[in-house]
Amino acid sequence: MYRSHTNGELRIEHVNQHVSLCGWVQKSRDLGAMTFVDLRDRYGITQLVLGEEHVDVAKSLGREDVIRIEGTVIERESKNKNIPTGEIEIAVIELTVLNKSKVPPFTIEKETDGGEELRMQYRYLDLRRPPLQKNLKLRHQLAIEARKYLDSIDFLEIETPYLIKSTPEGARDFVVPSRMNEGQFYALPQSPQTFKQLLMVSGYDRYYQIVRCFRDEDLRADRQPEFTQIDCEMAFVDQEDILNTFEGMMDYLFKKVKGIEINEFPRMTYEFAMETYGSDKPDIRFGMTFNYINDVAQNKGFNVFDQAESVIAIVAEDCASYTRKQLDALTDYVKRPQVGAKGLVYVRCNEDGTFKSSVDKFYSEEDLKAWADQCGAKAGDLILVLSGDKAATQKQMNELRLHLGNELGLRNPNVYAPLWVYDFPLLEWDEESGRYHAMHHPFTSPKEEDVPLLENDPGNVRANAYDMVLNGTEIGGGSIRIHDRAVQSKMFDLLGFTKEEAQAQFGFLMNAFEYGAPPHGGIALGFDRLCALFGGQETIRDFIAFPKNNSGRDVMIDSPSPISTEQLDELNIQLK
Amino acid sequence: MYRSHTNGELRIEHVNQHVSLCGWVQKSRDLGAMTFVDLRDRYGITQLVLGEEHVDVAKSLGREDVIRIEGTVIERESKNKNIPTGEIEIAVIELTVLNKSKVPPFTIEKETDGGEELRMQYRYLDLRRPPLQKNLKLRHQLAIEARKYLDSIDFLEIETPYLIKSTPEGARDFVVPSRMNEGQFYALPQSPQTFKQLLMVSGYDRYYQIVRCFRDEDLRADRQPEFTQIDCEMAFVDQEDILNTFEGMMDYLFKKVKGIEINEFPRMTYEFAMETYGSDKPDIRFGMTFNYINDVAQNKGFNVFDQAESVIAIVAEDCASYTRKQLDALTDYVKRPQVGAKGLVYVRCNEDGTFKSSVDKFYSEEDLKAWADQCGAKAGDLILVLSGDKAATQKQMNELRLHLGNELGLRNPNVYAPLWVYDFPLLEWDEESGRYHAMHHPFTSPKEEDVPLLENDPGNVRANAYDMVLNGTEIGGGSIRIHDRAVQSKMFDLLGFTKEEAQAQFGFLMNAFEYGAPPHGGIALGFDRLCALFGGQETIRDFIAFPKNNSGRDVMIDSPSPISTEQLDELNIQLK
Repeated sequence: MYRSHTNGELRIEHVNQHVSLCGWVQKSRDLGAMTFVDLRDRYGITQLVLGEEHVDVAKSLGREDVIRIEGTVIERESKNKNIPTGEIEIAVIELTVLNKSKVPPFTIEKETDGGEELRMQYRYLDLRRPPLQKNLKLRHQLAIEARKYLDSIDFLEIETPYLIKSTPEGARDFVVPSRMNEGQFYALPQSPQTFKQLLMVSGYDRYYQIVRCFRDEDLRADRQPEFTQIDCEMAFVDQEDILNTFEGMMDYLFKKVKGIEINEFPRMTYEFAMETYGSDKPDIRFGMTFNYINDVAQNKGFNVFDQAESVIAIVAEDCASYTRKQLDALTDYVKRPQVGAKGLVYVRCNEDGTFKSSVDKFYSEEDLKAWADQCGAKAGDLILVLSGDKAATQKQMNELRLHLGNELGLRNPNVYAPLWVYDFPLLEWDEESGRYHAMHHPFTSPKEEDVPLLENDPGNVRANAYDMVLNGTEIGGGSIRIHDRAVQSKMFDLLGFTKEEAQAQFGFLMNAFEYGAPPHGGIALGFDRLCALFGGQETIRDFIAFPKNNSGRDVMIDSPSPISTEQLDELNIQLK
Repeated sequence: MYRSHTNGELRIEHVNQHVSLCGWVQKSRDLGAMTFVDLRDRYGITQLVLGEEHVDVAKSLGREDVIRIEGTVIERESKNKNIPTGEIEIAVIELTVLNKSKVPPFTIEKETDGGEELRMQYRYLDLRRPPLQKNLKLRHQLAIEARKYLDSIDFLEIETPYLIKSTPEGARDFVVPSRMNEGQFYALPQSPQTFKQLLMVSGYDRYYQIVRCFRDEDLRADRQPEFTQIDCEMAFVDQEDILNTFEGMMDYLFKKVKGIEINEFPRMTYEFAMETYGSDKPDIRFGMTFNYINDVAQNKGFNVFDQAESVIAIVAEDCASYTRKQLDALTDYVKRPQVGAKGLVYVRCNEDGTFKSSVDKFYSEEDLKAWADQCGAKAGDLILVLSGDKAATQKQMNELRLHLGNELGLRNPNVYAPLWVYDFPLLEWDEESGRYHAMHHPFTSPKEEDVPLLENDPGNVRANAYDMVLNGTEIGGGSIRIHDRAVQSKMFDLLGFTKEEAQAQFGFLMNAFEYGAPPHGGIALGFDRLCALFGGQETIRDFIAFPKNNSGRDVMIDSPSPISTEQLDELNIQLK
């Protein structure tokens, strides 16, 4: 037996016990006759005291050496209140070096001096650092608690295949050449969508899976070619059932994992979210909602507003004191190409009841007061106004709102504000291909009352689709699916599939709908993102044990890599 | 809301309640004024009674139609004791057909009339049958209970990547061309072996994952190209710790999932298993162990035995009455090319104390009595003897023993006899390549006391390797790993790697060993097989929701399949 206890376990009540411990040398302080060693493992740090008899080995100990000790637990003279084991230390009787360590290329501490690339190359050392250990532990907790919740309400975890079929719809597939079926390929799943629907046809009723998915897309900063979903599907349900079930899951997870009670889980339509926040994933930790002030801002001679489809104002509370420099910085922000506004109008609602704006030339104090009244701005507030084409202005104002939210500290990562957005459009027009794309996916059902619009006004058909949003991030999306062959077939028509293409790619699903397919729907939650948000962070990379870099490479194992000609030959392929 | 209850839920105490149910029409009996319908879902069957007002819809109902009903729970006149809902039925008030079904291509019942191929094509219908629903439910239970057990003793589930690096060691990899890294490929993992070892280097201490693995091998009857493992690794442990931990897991699973107490979990060396059962995965549900009778059977003039390295006998209890025909069948069995024996010698130990054998010409009654004494055979038993080269004879006798076990009903699938086999050889000689292969894998450590043999007698080096065996099937295997760079490097030498090859393929692991790698070891359990055995069955296919056939095809979705030239172009590959 290597150890009797872990390094996070010993307390004052263990004094006088003979124990054995293993771990890594975090640091070693040589005080001449005595050496103090901090011994670290996943569970904590325990202080060791090495007497003179260990002086040789003590001097040879380096950072990250792996050692085993036996000794007696004693009470510390100067206690360390910062760590749970801080009241005791171990008087070492025997010390064995299990494995030496070279000097690590960066420090293994909470804050490290290692650069991103170096840490990726030595990921196994970076993973020793406490923040990453905390992240992976959190990920484990979230996964097991999600499973316990779903298990408790009769969901079955059912594994679906990873070697499936390539379909051109959606993102690009990773493919896998088949050696036994010459010239043919499997694809790795972008999601288990069709399989989970088939499981509903099979009567499994409540399915889930925490499952890897794959997308061969050009990687943006915070995307990974392989990512994990909590994937769920239910039969004999309507949208309300699904929203309640997964709201319940989130409540449970917040309570179990974070000890937080979620008191509000608002629901809003896509249309309301766009009107009010300019985003289908609004951050509702703070207000600063949109006000449409066309009626009070137009027809006063200010050409920019007069020609605009929408004039939208937000109120930054208590910001009337913003300096010229601060206001210029905001203007620069909205004029960045990524935001794309032409300019920014402001109105200071001064404490003395007067108003001062960047458009005083066109508007009287009375005019500006009307704006303030309409926006609910009070003395001391700052009104910010953007104008132009409605959709574009909503988008720009969303960016400004989030930017201000960050500046004003209104986006505390330890505050959690989840919500549902529902009634998404079914289709979106794609200029490039000149046809409609499914906004969610081709299996999403249209709202019953909008079905008549499918013929002549498909762009205005709403879907039985919903997103779960947390702190301005979409963490999940789902829909009630089509379960009728004719409707599914019509949807493929609308999306530009020929009958033959639809049959070749999704014939198995449409056939299945002919054998008693129940009404069903589901949701998929982005698990990497959920973990990051629960950890109070924005990027997912440090919540994945072995992530890839932005070129899709694992620099630690140096993959992808060339394969042998024999392998290529066996697969009946060659490089171009 | 579609339903107030499931079809397995209603009892006599629900009488008079107004309920709504959904499900599939299992069968419909038209009694003129009344129609009885069995409504099925995953939870059970509930009987519906349709009165005259529903006569039209009742007549139109077909098998597997999906319906929703509202009605009142009433007590049945003739109760059905065979189902939990058998005391009640539902007087239907309203019936809605949610989706019609075509006549299914085979019956959706416990026993079906559908052939293997048809059922694979319509897997989503086969999955409706109760035995498959039971299997997938069992699989879910085993997975969640395994997770709960491991979670309770501080194991963390940590996900490892699916897009990794191809290595020529071991079985053939499935590979994935990288679009972003021209001419390079990922490989799908045959197991997360190196990653879990790196997690030990990272200090995670107790890791597990229920994880998909991939092997591009020619498929035998009961192999799948993708399969699932319960994959585990621990640091600061010796073999004893690992055996105890996973013995504990099996005890827990048997108790929780099957309600069975496992009282014995024997451990035996590889050498003992081979000597006693001729197999490294002995079925110990029954005895019939090997007796080596060279000393009493040789030198009596029977040339076959005299020239044999080993003469091995087993005792079939109470089988002295076997007929000539039965004995001939056994002889035929062992002479099959798959077994490969030249012949079979038998001795009937008659009830009257006399002996009758197939080699009476060479052996006196006294000789045969000496055999019986040595084998512990009593009056009424049958002794069966094979001879020849030791290893070959052990293998043949193992086959005969298992065959007899089946014939005599000694291999009850509802009896569970797990055990450990340990001290496996480190290496096995491969005639074809003329070099040693790792019997477990190249990361397995040799037994300390056998290290000196590595230089001159590597074939006799034993490994710190162990298998978990259940009812004659290996369900898991593992080892204490090498954690020292020099030893790992030497192992690669022995396996015929050049220094350059070893560094290119496993350099990241050997480098990691230089930064304080702790002693560690682990195990991987075959989850598909475990589920099948817990289900009392031998084949894994019906414990996998969407399995592939023996050509690696999913005939339901028709995959693998050709991909477009554009896809090939983007990946910079072409067909040969």
